[in-house]
Amino acid sequence: MALHIEKIEKSKISEVDFNNLKFGQVFTDHMFECDYENGEWQTPKIRPYQALSFDPSAKVFHYGQAVFEGMKAYKDDNDDVWLFRPDQNQERINKSAERLDMPPFPKDYFFEGLTTLIKMDSDWVQKGADNSLYIRPFVISTENCVSASSSNKYKFMIICSPVQAYYAGEVRVVFADKYSRAANGGVGYAKAAGNYAASFYPAKLAAKEGYQQVLWTDAANHEFLEEAGTMNVFFRVNDTLLTAPTSDRILDGVTRKSIIQFAEDKGIKVEVRPVRVTEIIEAAKKGELKEMFGAGTAAVISPILGFAHKGEKFELPKIDDSYASFIKKSITDIQRNKAEDKFGWRFQVK
Amino acid sequence: MALHIEKIEKSKISEVDFNNLKFGQVFTDHMFECDYENGEWQTPKIRPYQALSFDPSAKVFHYGQAVFEGMKAYKDDNDDVWLFRPDQNQERINKSAERLDMPPFPKDYFFEGLTTLIKMDSDWVQKGADNSLYIRPFVISTENCVSASSSNKYKFMIICSPVQAYYAGEVRVVFADKYSRAANGGVGYAKAAGNYAASFYPAKLAAKEGYQQVLWTDAANHEFLEEAGTMNVFFRVNDTLLTAPTSDRILDGVTRKSIIQFAEDKGIKVEVRPVRVTEIIEAAKKGELKEMFGAGTAAVISPILGFAHKGEKFELPKIDDSYASFIKKSITDIQRNKAEDKFGWRFQVK
Ligand SMILES: Cc1ncc(COP(=O)(O)O)c(C=O)c1O
Ligand SMILES: Cc1ncc(COP(=O)(O)O)c(C=O)c1O
Repeated sequence: MALHIEKIEKSKISEVDFNNLKFGQVFTDHMFECDYENGEWQTPKIRPYQALSFDPSAKVFHYGQAVFEGMKAYKDDNDDVWLFRPDQNQERINKSAERLDMPPFPKDYFFEGLTTLIKMDSDWVQKGADNSLYIRPFVISTENCVSASSSNKYKFMIICSPVQAYYAGEVRVVFADKYSRAANGGVGYAKAAGNYAASFYPAKLAAKEGYQQVLWTDAANHEFLEEAGTMNVFFRVNDTLLTAPTSDRILDGVTRKSIIQFAEDKGIKVEVRPVRVTEIIEAAKKGELKEMFGAGTAAVISPILGFAHKGEKFELPKIDDSYASFIKKSITDIQRNKAEDKFGWRFQVK
Repeated sequence: MALHIEKIEKSKISEVDFNNLKFGQVFTDHMFECDYENGEWQTPKIRPYQALSFDPSAKVFHYGQAVFEGMKAYKDDNDDVWLFRPDQNQERINKSAERLDMPPFPKDYFFEGLTTLIKMDSDWVQKGADNSLYIRPFVISTENCVSASSSNKYKFMIICSPVQAYYAGEVRVVFADKYSRAANGGVGYAKAAGNYAASFYPAKLAAKEGYQQVLWTDAANHEFLEEAGTMNVFFRVNDTLLTAPTSDRILDGVTRKSIIQFAEDKGIKVEVRPVRVTEIIEAAKKGELKEMFGAGTAAVISPILGFAHKGEKFELPKIDDSYASFIKKSITDIQRNKAEDKFGWRFQVK
């Protein structure tokens, strides 16, 4: 395939303080871009990272026809660069796109663009346990027309941002009992732009009460625990891990499925089934709720220290041999080429 | 208030064929723009309509944090220009913004921007029963950051597009029985960008079967008829008009509330209550379903000639004294200053 490349004249990397990065605000030297017009994807290109010109009538501004992905690259001690299960993200962005009536992006374009871009900007992937390069593939609708229908033009892009750890501080959540994130038959399972905007206001209300995340429940009755803002969720009741099954409301997270596979392989009992609010509260009251954690690319695993439900507050016990830290360390070691890759998850960028 | 104005050098109006307009693709000479930064709305400006520069990391591209409105201006035989209940749109865009955690746009900025812009571009409001100027106020999130949280920068804009009739051809709908548009506790009542993208794929499937719109039902059980793509919906059973109550799933349409008020004033019985799929099908079978129509700014009223539900097809009878045509003509006459404005709905731009 053809890929047009225009290199920067001088890298801006020396201006970056890699020890004081705010998540997602600094971008690497280049970006990948490919336009869809006249029913096909045009020649993709890599160019210096830069602002682009958009007409105010571009559909993405009006109708939210946009999907995205989030992935990370890691550098090991030999300066080799690794991705984690990128095939999953490639497949998922096309699943998301289909639900939003957007054309699929060809797999070979995706991988050629992704790997070429990361190689060109590999200095931006820093070594060290907290460092990684956050990679954001996304597709936006670019037809200039304010009628509420599907666009006939799109732009696929990949931009990259060097990051440190995602969550600063402790995480406590509130179980949703009024607002909701997704409906049956809706777009909750897609990484659709609009899903995120819809969660900001409830998240702000939660933050005011001191909770860093909303734990979404089913919209119909708020009876089942589903997922958090950008994380799937696991509950450890005694020694069993519980997590909600994927559905058309829940994102099929790469971290979630990796944790399930890893845990089962280690002999940890995992139950993938609807998780009732009431059973988790009961378990918490009996002292059987040992752990809760979120799972997602940004933080791999974020322990959840407590939760609130309809004004009632619960604090989880401190625990020594937590599943969260064991699984996080194990998966992180696989991602960073520090442990055997038993499941074939690692992908070298070379 | 201060309003910076920069005029075009030469109008592009002479290039426009007003008899062959595609909806929402041609824009007037100027646009209104106001940026939110450091916690406040900055000095608004009117400038020549033009493309703008956006960083690829602008939040609107990733998280769909964007809301909009749709309104119309009409020109009467004396060259006076009229809006229809613009206060409703001004209030609604702020309600939508609140739900998406965006700052409200000040009412005086809204009206000063709107009226100044329309006066400057008043040549673009064409006379004649099918002609109007479609007005699109919208707000987008413009912070450059790919973390999934609320933006700290926004841009409010108004752009205007001369239009003819919105719906070409006949409209038949399919009742949703799998996909859904909105959940309880979600953002369905807001004119949130993402709501529209979510409906494109189901709409495409419907179009393949020959239906121009999906008539959305409640996500929980698909038992109640709610609204269509960009229209609220009315059913005439014998001589009673039925329409769903507003809720957090349904847009509180200006046309809908105007129709209810107008019809009641004319002695037509209106029932605002949940409308069951089963009762409409039964009424259709008994010949009691006289009319169905969509109600929205774009077309005021769009008669719906038939519908399908789970593969079963229904065709409505042709009718002479339809409510749809009577109400459409009456409201259109009010909008265009051809009839008494009993309810105080008209607003002159002067
Ligand atoms: C809504 C939502 N749930 C869960 C996840 C976790 O998915 P993954 O593990 O693939 O990053 C994400 C994303 O990143 C998300 O946006
Ligand atoms: C989802 C939806 N329902 C109903 C309507 C009708 O509202 P209005 O009469 O205010 O145009 C619209 C919009 O225009 C809409 O987008």
